[in-house]
Amino acid sequence: MIRIAVLGAGRIGRIHAANAAANPRCRLVAVADVVAEAAASLANSTGCEAASDPAATLARADIDAVVIGTPTDTHVALLLEAARRGKAVLCEKPVDLDIRKVADAEAEIARLGARVMVAFNRRFDPGMAAVHRAIAAGAIGTVRQVVITSRDPAPPPLSYIASSGGIFRDMTIHDFDLARWLLGEEPREVFATASTLVDPAIGAAGDFDTLMVLMRTASGRQCHINNSRQCAYGYDQRIEVFGAAGMLLNDNLRPSTLRRYNVDETEAREPLLNFFLERYAEAYRLELDAFLAAIEGGTAMPLTVEDGRRALRLADAALASAASGRTVTV
Amino acid sequence: MIRIAVLGAGRIGRIHAANAAANPRCRLVAVADVVAEAAASLANSTGCEAASDPAATLARADIDAVVIGTPTDTHVALLLEAARRGKAVLCEKPVDLDIRKVADAEAEIARLGARVMVAFNRRFDPGMAAVHRAIAAGAIGTVRQVVITSRDPAPPPLSYIASSGGIFRDMTIHDFDLARWLLGEEPREVFATASTLVDPAIGAAGDFDTLMVLMRTASGRQCHINNSRQCAYGYDQRIEVFGAAGMLLNDNLRPSTLRRYNVDETEAREPLLNFFLERYAEAYRLELDAFLAAIEGGTAMPLTVEDGRRALRLADAALASAASGRTVTV
Amino acid sequence: MIRIAVLGAGRIGRIHAANAAANPRCRLVAVADVVAEAAASLANSTGCEAASDPAATLARADIDAVVIGTPTDTHVALLLEAARRGKAVLCEKPVDLDIRKVADAEAEIARLGARVMVAFNRRFDPGMAAVHRAIAAGAIGTVRQVVITSRDPAPPPLSYIASSGGIFRDMTIHDFDLARWLLGEEPREVFATASTLVDPAIGAAGDFDTLMVLMRTASGRQCHINNSRQCAYGYDQRIEVFGAAGMLLNDNLRPSTLRRYNVDETEAREPLLNFFLERYAEAYRLELDAFLAAIEGGTAMPLTVEDGRRALRLADAALASAASGRTVTV
Amino acid sequence: MIRIAVLGAGRIGRIHAANAAANPRCRLVAVADVVAEAAASLANSTGCEAASDPAATLARADIDAVVIGTPTDTHVALLLEAARRGKAVLCEKPVDLDIRKVADAEAEIARLGARVMVAFNRRFDPGMAAVHRAIAAGAIGTVRQVVITSRDPAPPPLSYIASSGGIFRDMTIHDFDLARWLLGEEPREVFATASTLVDPAIGAAGDFDTLMVLMRTASGRQCHINNSRQCAYGYDQRIEVFGAAGMLLNDNLRPSTLRRYNVDETEAREPLLNFFLERYAEAYRLELDAFLAAIEGGTAMPLTVEDGRRALRLADAALASAASGRTVTV
Repeated sequence: MIRIAVLGAGRIGRIHAANAAANPRCRLVAVADVVAEAAASLANSTGCEAASDPAATLARADIDAVVIGTPTDTHVALLLEAARRGKAVLCEKPVDLDIRKVADAEAEIARLGARVMVAFNRRFDPGMAAVHRAIAAGAIGTVRQVVITSRDPAPPPLSYIASSGGIFRDMTIHDFDLARWLLGEEPREVFATASTLVDPAIGAAGDFDTLMVLMRTASGRQCHINNSRQCAYGYDQRIEVFGAAGMLLNDNLRPSTLRRYNVDETEAREPLLNFFLERYAEAYRLELDAFLAAIEGGTAMPLTVEDGRRALRLADAALASAASGRTVTV
Repeated sequence: MIRIAVLGAGRIGRIHAANAAANPRCRLVAVADVVAEAAASLANSTGCEAASDPAATLARADIDAVVIGTPTDTHVALLLEAARRGKAVLCEKPVDLDIRKVADAEAEIARLGARVMVAFNRRFDPGMAAVHRAIAAGAIGTVRQVVITSRDPAPPPLSYIASSGGIFRDMTIHDFDLARWLLGEEPREVFATASTLVDPAIGAAGDFDTLMVLMRTASGRQCHINNSRQCAYGYDQRIEVFGAAGMLLNDNLRPSTLRRYNVDETEAREPLLNFFLERYAEAYRLELDAFLAAIEGGTAMPLTVEDGRRALRLADAALASAASGRTVTV
Repeated sequence: MIRIAVLGAGRIGRIHAANAAANPRCRLVAVADVVAEAAASLANSTGCEAASDPAATLARADIDAVVIGTPTDTHVALLLEAARRGKAVLCEKPVDLDIRKVADAEAEIARLGARVMVAFNRRFDPGMAAVHRAIAAGAIGTVRQVVITSRDPAPPPLSYIASSGGIFRDMTIHDFDLARWLLGEEPREVFATASTLVDPAIGAAGDFDTLMVLMRTASGRQCHINNSRQCAYGYDQRIEVFGAAGMLLNDNLRPSTLRRYNVDETEAREPLLNFFLERYAEAYRLELDAFLAAIEGGTAMPLTVEDGRRALRLADAALASAASGRTVTV
Repeated sequence: MIRIAVLGAGRIGRIHAANAAANPRCRLVAVADVVAEAAASLANSTGCEAASDPAATLARADIDAVVIGTPTDTHVALLLEAARRGKAVLCEKPVDLDIRKVADAEAEIARLGARVMVAFNRRFDPGMAAVHRAIAAGAIGTVRQVVITSRDPAPPPLSYIASSGGIFRDMTIHDFDLARWLLGEEPREVFATASTLVDPAIGAAGDFDTLMVLMRTASGRQCHINNSRQCAYGYDQRIEVFGAAGMLLNDNLRPSTLRRYNVDETEAREPLLNFFLERYAEAYRLELDAFLAAIEGGTAMPLTVEDGRRALRLADAALASAASGRTVTV
C-alpha cells in the first residue's frame, strides 16, 4: 500500500487529504503545513500525523508519495526536493507562474527520472473524460472545432488576484489544458481579447475579468475559450467538441435532477453546483486514484510537468495577444 | 382536385376550412353553418361560398368530400346523409355520445360502402406519429406499458360540460384512441378513479375534473391515462411507451426553444403551447391531408367509425368503473 | 460519538458499513454476519471488528446503535432484541412480510419507547427530497396527482423471488412509501393490475413482473405507480407530482452529463445508472446521516415502523386487488 | 390591402411568394423571373400572375410593394428602381457584395425617402426574437458575451461558392447581423481565423469552410461566432447571450419532440431540421409580416440597408483579419 503525505492544509490540501484517507490504494501518513493549527486540524479529521515543516516531511523514509498543495511559489522547490528523494509527486497547478522555472524543473525531473504528475483536475471529471473517450473511439470523426466555457460564480479577493499571475495563468490555464487534450493537436496560433466588465478594481489591479480566446492548430483545427470571473447562475463549466461526424457536449452539474413547472416556466432546474470543490469533487477523487494507479502499475503519469509547461505557454501567449491585438505564434 | 365543403364554422370548423383552403390536394368550395354570419365570415377569409344549411350543402353535385364540424348531436345525421350521397366524410369526434347510435351508423356506412374518417387529430401530431412509427420499426421491441398524460389548461364553461357527455367521453376519449393505437392490442379490462379537485361546480354538474385510468389487454399489456381539467403550466400532452427493448417519449411543445438561466434557476423554458388549436395546428393540417390522400389514392381511411366506437366503448367502461370501483371488462 | 454496529455483511450491509466508517457522527465498532468470512472481509475493509453472531453483538455495552441488514425473516427478532437493550435501530425494509408481525413489533417498540427507524432509502435521494421540499414550500399548490415510475434493469434470481413476498411487497413497497410521502394524505382506495411479460418462470413461481397501481386518498388525490422487473436502458426511477399551481419532476441519474450528436441522433445521453447501489449511493449516505442526526439531537426518527407497516398494508391491498379486479379499501 | 409582387422565382422567391399568398395583410399580384417557366409555375401554385421581366413588373401601378429575391448582382438596380417608383421593398441579403455599392444605395434611398427593408430572416425566428425580447426586458442584466453557432449541413456547389463572395460575406453575414443585434453595441474590433477542413476544393477556390470569429465592442462586450460548411447532425443554429444577471440560450429545432431510450442511450432526439427553408419557415413568415405591418402602420422598417452595410463591413473586416492574423478595427 502506497504511503502518502499531503503538503498544504488549505482548501485544496483538505480535498486531497480526505480523498487519500478514503482511497484503498494508499495510506495517508501525514499532512504538513507551516500553519501548525491547520495541519493539526486536518490530521485529526483524517486520522493521520500532523507536521509543520513540509520539507522535513519529504525526508521521511516511510513516505512513498506526496501531494503538493502549498502556495504556488513553493511548488518547484518542494517538487524537486521530493523528486530527489525518490518520492512520486502529484503537484497542484500551476507548477510555477514563470515558464523558465517550469522548463528548468521539467529538465531536472527528466534527469532524475522522477515520477511527477501535474494536477489538472478537469481531465478526470466523468463527463470530460467521457467526451475524450468518445473522441478516441471515433464517435465524431476528426475534430474540427472545440468550444470551452468556464465562468466562475464570483471573483476571488483582490489580494488573490494580485498574486495569481493574472486570469490567463490562473483561470484560463485549465481551459488551455483541456483545449490541448481535446484538440488532439498542439495549438500553434493564439489570439485573445479581454475586458474588465465585472469589477473595475480588477482592471485597476492590472488584470481582466472577462475574456475570449481563439486558437488554431497546424492542421487548421480551431478552439474557442470564454471566461468570466462572475456568473449569476453558478459555476459554468461546459465543453463542446465538433467533428466531421458529429458533436459531443458536456453539460453542467446541479444539486439534483429536479425540474419545476408553473405558470411562468417549465423545465426549470436548480442553479449550478458552486464552486469547484463541489463541481469537481468526483474529479479530485479520480485524479488522485489515477496518480496512485500509475505508481502501483509502474505506468506513465497521465499528466506531466510538460503538460503544465505547455498550458502555461498558451496562457503567456494569450496575455501577449490581448495586449498587442495580434495572433501570437507558439 | 377534390372539391370539399366544411360544415360548421365554429372553432374547429375554422381550423379545417383554413387548412382546406391551403391544401393543394383540394379546393374549398363552401362552408356552411346555421349561424349565417359565422359562415359568411369564414367564407370571406378563406375565399369560398357561404351557406346556412349544412344539409343542403350535402346535396350539391360539385362537392366530393365534406368535413363535419357541427355540434355533436348533428354528426350522425349529417354523416349518413353525406354517405348516402357518395361524399367522402371527415367527421369530428365524437361521432355521437350514445354508443348504440355510433354502432348503427357504423353498420349503415358498411352497408353503403361509404368512405368515412373519424377525426382523432392526435394520431397525426408529428411527435405522436414518430412514436408510432418507431414502435412499428421495432425500436423498443414488444410494448409492455403505455402512460398517457393529458391535462387541459382550464376547464370549459359549465354549459359545455353539461352537454359534453362527461369528461371520459369528451376529453379522455382522445387518450383511449391513443391507447389502442400505441398498445397495438385492444384493452380488455378498464379501471378508473375520478375526483373533483378543480371546481366543485363540475362535481355538482355530475362530472369529474381529475381522473386516472388503468387498462389491460388480453396479453397483459398495461396502460395508464391521467387527465386534469386544469393545468397551471399550459396544455400538457405527453406519451410514454415502454417496451422490452427501450422506451419512447413524446414531449410537449412550447412557443420557442428559449432557455433561461439566472440566480434562481437554469434551463427554464416557456410555459406550454395553449391550447389544442395551437398545440395540434400541425396535426390538424396533416389529418386533413391524410383524409385527402386516402380519397386520391383510393386507399383505406386511416381512422374509421369503428375506431370512434371502440374509443367510446372504453370511455363508457371507464365511467362505469369509476362508479362501481370494479374493473369493467370490454 | 455514536458507536455503531452493522448486522449483515451482504450487499446492503456493505453499503451501510462503508457509510458508517466514513461518517463523522459515528464510529463503526463491529460488523456481524453468520457467514464469518463475509464479516471478516467487511471488517477488514472498513477497519472494525468482525463477529459471527449478530445477536451477541447486540449484547455489547460499547454499542449505541445498530443497522440491521440481515435477511428479512430475522429483522423483527433482532430489532426487538436491540430495542430491549436500548440501542437505536436502523432496520432495512421490509420489517417483515407478515403485517401482523410488523404491527406487533410496532406495539412493542412503543411500549419500550425505543428509537427505531425503517430504511426507505429513496426519501433521502437529493432529487426526491428536493421534490418533497418544494411541495412543502408551496411551489405547486395542493397536490392532485402523483406518478411514480420504478423499473429494475433485470429480474432477480428465481430463488430470490420465491422468498421475496412477491413484487408488491418486495419492489413496489418503496413506491407505496413514496406515494404516502408525496401525496401528503393516506391512500384509502387501492387498485392494481399485474402481468407476467418479462419471464414466464416468474409467473410460474406465482409472482408478476409488470404492474400498474392506482390509489386515491380521502380528499380525492390520485396516484399511479408502474413497475417492471426488466428495463433495457437501466434503472428507471422517476417521480412526477402535479398540483394546482404546477408540476415537479425528478429525473434519472446517468454516469455523466455527456450528450452525443451524430447523423442519426442528437442529445443522446448514456444509459441510466444501474442499479440501486449506484443510483442511490448518495441516498444511503444521507439516510444513515439522518438516523445519526436524530440520535444526536434526540429528535424523532424521520421514518418509523409505522411507515413500514403502512407501506406493507398498501402492498397487501394491491396484491388482493390484482387478484380480485376490485378496489381494496384500506 | 397591400398589393405585392415577388421578383425571383428561385428557392427564396418561392418561400416569399407562398407566404405572401397566405398573409391576410397583402394580396400577391405577380411573380416575375427571367426564367419564364419558373415564374409560371410559381404563379400557378400561388394563384397570381406570372411575368418574365422583373424590371417591368416594377413599373406597374397596381403594385405597392416588392420582394427582391433575384440573384445578388441584380439587387441594387432593382431596389433603386423600385424605390424611385415609390414601392416599399423587402430585399434579400446581401444587398451587394461590394460595400461601396451598398453605401451608395443607402445614400440614394435616404435621398428618396424610400422604404426599404433588408431580409435578415433570423431576427424573426421565434426563439431568436424571444432572446432579444428577454434581453430588452432586463432578464440577464448587461450583456457581456455572445456566442453564435452556425453550421450548414453540407457545403453548396463549388459554382455557388465561386460567386458567393466567400464564406464571411455569404454565411457569416447572418451571424454578424445577429451579433450587432444581440450585443446592443457596434463591434469595433474584429478577429478571425479560418481553415479548409471539409473539402480541399473549397480552399482551391480561394474560400474557407470552417471558421471562428472574435469581436469586441467599445465598452468591452465580446462575441464569438463559429461556422462550418458541413455538419453531420443537421443545420446547427444556436445562440447564447451571457449577462451580468444570467444567460439566455436558443436551441435548435427538430422534426418532433420524440425522445428514444434503449440499451445504448437515453434521451436521444432526432437530427436537426435541415435546412434553412425548414428551420426558418416561421421566421420567413414573420419577416414578411413585419415588413407588411411597417407599411400598414407607417412605422420604421425593422431592418434597413444600413444594417446590411454594417454586417457586410464586419464580414470584410473578418476576411482581412483572417488573412493578416491581426485585429481589424471597424
